[in-house]
Amino acid sequence: MHTATTASPHARRRALPFNAVTLTGGFWGQRQAVNHTVSLRHGYEQLELAGNFHNLRLAAGLATGAYKGLRFLDSDLYKWLEAVSYALAAGPDPALEQMANATIDLLATAQQGDGYLNAYYQVAKPGQRWTDLDHGHELYCAGHLFQAAVAHHRATGRPRLLEIACRFADHIDATFGPTLRHGTCGHPEIEMALVELYRETGEARYLNLAAFFLDQRGQRRMVGLPPFGPEYQQDHVPVRAAEAVAGHAVRQLYLNSGLADLYLETGEAALLAAAERLWHDGTAHKMHVTGGYGARFDGEAFGEAYELPSDRSYCETCAAIAALMFNWRMLLATGDARYADAFERALYNGFLAGVALDGRAFFYVNPLQSRAGATRQAWYACACCPPNVMRQLASVEHFLATHSAAGVQIHQYASAAIHVDGRALRLETNYPWDGDVRVIVDAAGGDEWELALRLPAWCVGATAELTLTGLEQAGLPLSPPLTPGTYAAFACAWQPGDVLTLHLPLPPRLTQPHPRIDALRGCLALERGPLVYCLEQADQPAGVDLLDVQVDPEAASQAAWQPDLLGGVVAVHASGFHLDQAAWSEALYYPAAAAPLPRTPLTLTAVPYYAWANRGPAPMRIWLPAA
Amino acid sequence: MHTATTASPHARRRALPFNAVTLTGGFWGQRQAVNHTVSLRHGYEQLELAGNFHNLRLAAGLATGAYKGLRFLDSDLYKWLEAVSYALAAGPDPALEQMANATIDLLATAQQGDGYLNAYYQVAKPGQRWTDLDHGHELYCAGHLFQAAVAHHRATGRPRLLEIACRFADHIDATFGPTLRHGTCGHPEIEMALVELYRETGEARYLNLAAFFLDQRGQRRMVGLPPFGPEYQQDHVPVRAAEAVAGHAVRQLYLNSGLADLYLETGEAALLAAAERLWHDGTAHKMHVTGGYGARFDGEAFGEAYELPSDRSYCETCAAIAALMFNWRMLLATGDARYADAFERALYNGFLAGVALDGRAFFYVNPLQSRAGATRQAWYACACCPPNVMRQLASVEHFLATHSAAGVQIHQYASAAIHVDGRALRLETNYPWDGDVRVIVDAAGGDEWELALRLPAWCVGATAELTLTGLEQAGLPLSPPLTPGTYAAFACAWQPGDVLTLHLPLPPRLTQPHPRIDALRGCLALERGPLVYCLEQADQPAGVDLLDVQVDPEAASQAAWQPDLLGGVVAVHASGFHLDQAAWSEALYYPAAAAPLPRTPLTLTAVPYYAWANRGPAPMRIWLPAA
Repeated sequence: MHTATTASPHARRRALPFNAVTLTGGFWGQRQAVNHTVSLRHGYEQLELAGNFHNLRLAAGLATGAYKGLRFLDSDLYKWLEAVSYALAAGPDPALEQMANATIDLLATAQQGDGYLNAYYQVAKPGQRWTDLDHGHELYCAGHLFQAAVAHHRATGRPRLLEIACRFADHIDATFGPTLRHGTCGHPEIEMALVELYRETGEARYLNLAAFFLDQRGQRRMVGLPPFGPEYQQDHVPVRAAEAVAGHAVRQLYLNSGLADLYLETGEAALLAAAERLWHDGTAHKMHVTGGYGARFDGEAFGEAYELPSDRSYCETCAAIAALMFNWRMLLATGDARYADAFERALYNGFLAGVALDGRAFFYVNPLQSRAGATRQAWYACACCPPNVMRQLASVEHFLATHSAAGVQIHQYASAAIHVDGRALRLETNYPWDGDVRVIVDAAGGDEWELALRLPAWCVGATAELTLTGLEQAGLPLSPPLTPGTYAAFACAWQPGDVLTLHLPLPPRLTQPHPRIDALRGCLALERGPLVYCLEQADQPAGVDLLDVQVDPEAASQAAWQPDLLGGVVAVHASGFHLDQAAWSEALYYPAAAAPLPRTPLTLTAVPYYAWANRGPAPMRIWLPAA
Repeated sequence: MHTATTASPHARRRALPFNAVTLTGGFWGQRQAVNHTVSLRHGYEQLELAGNFHNLRLAAGLATGAYKGLRFLDSDLYKWLEAVSYALAAGPDPALEQMANATIDLLATAQQGDGYLNAYYQVAKPGQRWTDLDHGHELYCAGHLFQAAVAHHRATGRPRLLEIACRFADHIDATFGPTLRHGTCGHPEIEMALVELYRETGEARYLNLAAFFLDQRGQRRMVGLPPFGPEYQQDHVPVRAAEAVAGHAVRQLYLNSGLADLYLETGEAALLAAAERLWHDGTAHKMHVTGGYGARFDGEAFGEAYELPSDRSYCETCAAIAALMFNWRMLLATGDARYADAFERALYNGFLAGVALDGRAFFYVNPLQSRAGATRQAWYACACCPPNVMRQLASVEHFLATHSAAGVQIHQYASAAIHVDGRALRLETNYPWDGDVRVIVDAAGGDEWELALRLPAWCVGATAELTLTGLEQAGLPLSPPLTPGTYAAFACAWQPGDVLTLHLPLPPRLTQPHPRIDALRGCLALERGPLVYCLEQADQPAGVDLLDVQVDPEAASQAAWQPDLLGGVVAVHASGFHLDQAAWSEALYYPAAAAPLPRTPLTLTAVPYYAWANRGPAPMRIWLPAA
């Protein structure tokens, strides 16, 4: 789905071939196992309950009744099918395979003679194809079909779903184009999907059609969902002229991903320049500390620059996933470590908080502070997020490394085996709980080549403890410069048995927000390695109200591995205070000269944000008032 | 409309009879003159443009075509007609009178034989009366008709509009009731309107019907506007069991006003107790410093306790007006100065910001901070606010004073003449620009009686300068206790010519927010007297970005009358700093140990918040980061 497996001459990094990376346990291996054994089956059940299969059966003439649910339900099913395809690539699973095959049978039956396939329009709006591009989500659903089909083809080698996708893509290509019908979809998605379909099939029409759809944007033709303007559907500015992210966060970030994909295949400088401007605006002005995006509930939208509330942060799970897609493509396009840094922040925090530890419940909205607590749900009427989580978890290993003419680049650290270009590498690590990463060369592939290891930007405060050993054995100069936010790259004729050991220092650290972020003024966040931490009520002393805590910025925090907490996490213990509200008058507003509240010292216990809300609904906060 | 003119034995204060108070210039006289000479005529034109008159002509069979606009457009017209009625009471205005008479003619023609009157249902939904109580706004529109009719009867003595209202009320009373149809309106309003109609007509059926409609709430029968629950329509809890304000802010505060009105007429203790709980929750947890309510755009709703963002404060103008209604009724019910304090805060700030100085443009949403600036609009598709502003401004003198068996109470200070119970008082003041108020007894009315003057709670920081002179001449003890947040009350046999002079100290003051308000942490607000101040870009030195200012909490501020600024205001000059963002890395999040930004001293100029956005769209903020 959102991996670029075909090299572009313009890309400075290339995604590895499908199945070049295998997780070997560890943090992500554990999460992926839950995804495969629990979430994908749960998804199948939920798709049945919600009507997704029912709707396709109606379209296929295999059932009677009325269409159920929102018009874009097909897309949920496609995302789930994409996730199942990745899971099948990892190893045999007859039950999942049967589910996938039955689903593909159903899609084949439902597809119309001319290639059109959309349960909502076939069942509920016959004869009204393409009459509501602004809101109808037809091209959006088609895009998700294409991504699922590419994944299934790569995973199984079987052509059936890809053929269904291409028949539909050909129908779209015969309908839309410069000399045909104009217009595009209110929800971007088709763009990156068509580029991926081009990569898998080599059919240049699909790439051209992606470019056409991108060029259709910015004509301000679309009628936003009132009261929102054309930003809602990303129709407010031509893509090459965009200066800032705006409107619906998921739609903007999906569009950005398509924009970057088109650059990866065409090398058009204006596309990269626009993508870089959009990335910069998002990251420098509108990103939550979790790597999540979307400040507003109304319109599921970006706010203004520095509008980043904690309690009403929208941070849709799909927006974090979309940020992963966009960052990955920008990393391929440029090789710049900042995209891998941003990817890591979104992956471990904004994205991973979207799913319960047991794999059976999901957040759509991810607040950074919850006064009353929140509960993940098994499914949603608008269920875009749960199967999006599933396909991201099922493919997480695709994003660990890239290769290039020079060698191999490791971007994210996880226990994994990598086979590419005749080389075999193993990564052994307990990351993110500790910062030691062993990179073992099992097969060297002959010639001299460069191994590049990302040094995360978050190490910047502890560079003295950032070390790399094993260089001597490989015959490399000792004491290379190790600069956080860059790659440590070593070219040599590697030998089997060479081992580099990277030590990333992981002291808990306090992070301050930009002084223009009004909602976070006077607060600090606890982080450790790639993880953003939060306070949950359950871990604090009795009688502590999370509205009344302060963290002491001068005191050092302590990290402690707690195997029985939340599936095993490193908790962080920080010194702080509890304000005595009894000394406050009931007034909300009070003369500035009034004395500050008396306070009592206490130890605060923080847990990784991704693990919050797994012990029943209770208050949580990431940003802590500084004492 | 929202005045209680009939005494209740249970009310500790009574509203003065209609027309007992006349404004004699001053701050409110000036605003009311703009309302009468500009806004009411503007409203007539806008109601014509928006289709409100057109819709009624369709209902009356006087025109052909389709219904225009939202279903509750009648209510806008009724609010305007109520405002026009108050204006007619103040003095002859043939043009306004002609508009009012023509409107009443139209209503009489449109009213159906059985008394029913609603343009939307008559024109667009014939035969579907009362089929959508959750969303249809029929009873809401009826309530606004009743309020307009009471106002018109009081103002002109003519019965025609009141007869139309009573015919419709009788129809409703014959339709709904314990042994008839159950249910109530998704938008509260009918409750207080029926109580007022009872007060004007003495017809007990109307009071009973108000009680019935109140008792219908809390059965969670209503289907909220997705994704909102029954809180949206105030159907989530029985009124006597309510503990907290929730859901749509205007609907909650209209409901609270009806609740208080029913208490004023029945004296049922459970009603007052519920009203007091709701008032406390709103004021202690969910009120913006402007006296405005509504933290969320989505659902136009209250947030959680302490969820009070500045940039995305919703603070609908109608919610501030509703807060005035509720506070006024609670003041009547209890005589407690805190309600008059809260009334004053909402009146001068949250309410008055809703209208441009020229009377031709209105805010629906009233942010406390605007990064990009905002522009009031001439009208809105959902135009509840503009005519609500008009009726509030046209009746502002109704809320200055009350009377009781003991005497007369002055709650708000304005240049005005008061005639009640054979007594004549004059208030002379330049309030809120200065704090001297002369209360002159022109006719004493014979016996000993008590004159009570409110000492605003905001004086608390400057009690040494709070003085009252003239007691000696009246033969009263000197040096009475003067406690802000209470009334100074003096019983004596007043003589014509007695003059009390109250001096309310008005030093600019800095206000801190409750430490639990995350969005305001580390900030202070500038206030002076009843006015909340804000910074606008236009008043700051060149090159100053309002995102980068700090106020110095230690430095004294200076107030200066500026007759040519914004129609004449006292500006406040405060010492502060400007942060040099050039020293900040581009990152949004940064190690806590990083040095604070360098800063430059500067003088900040603040103007009253109500006057913002009268010089084109530009940044504004109330809450200022403390240096």
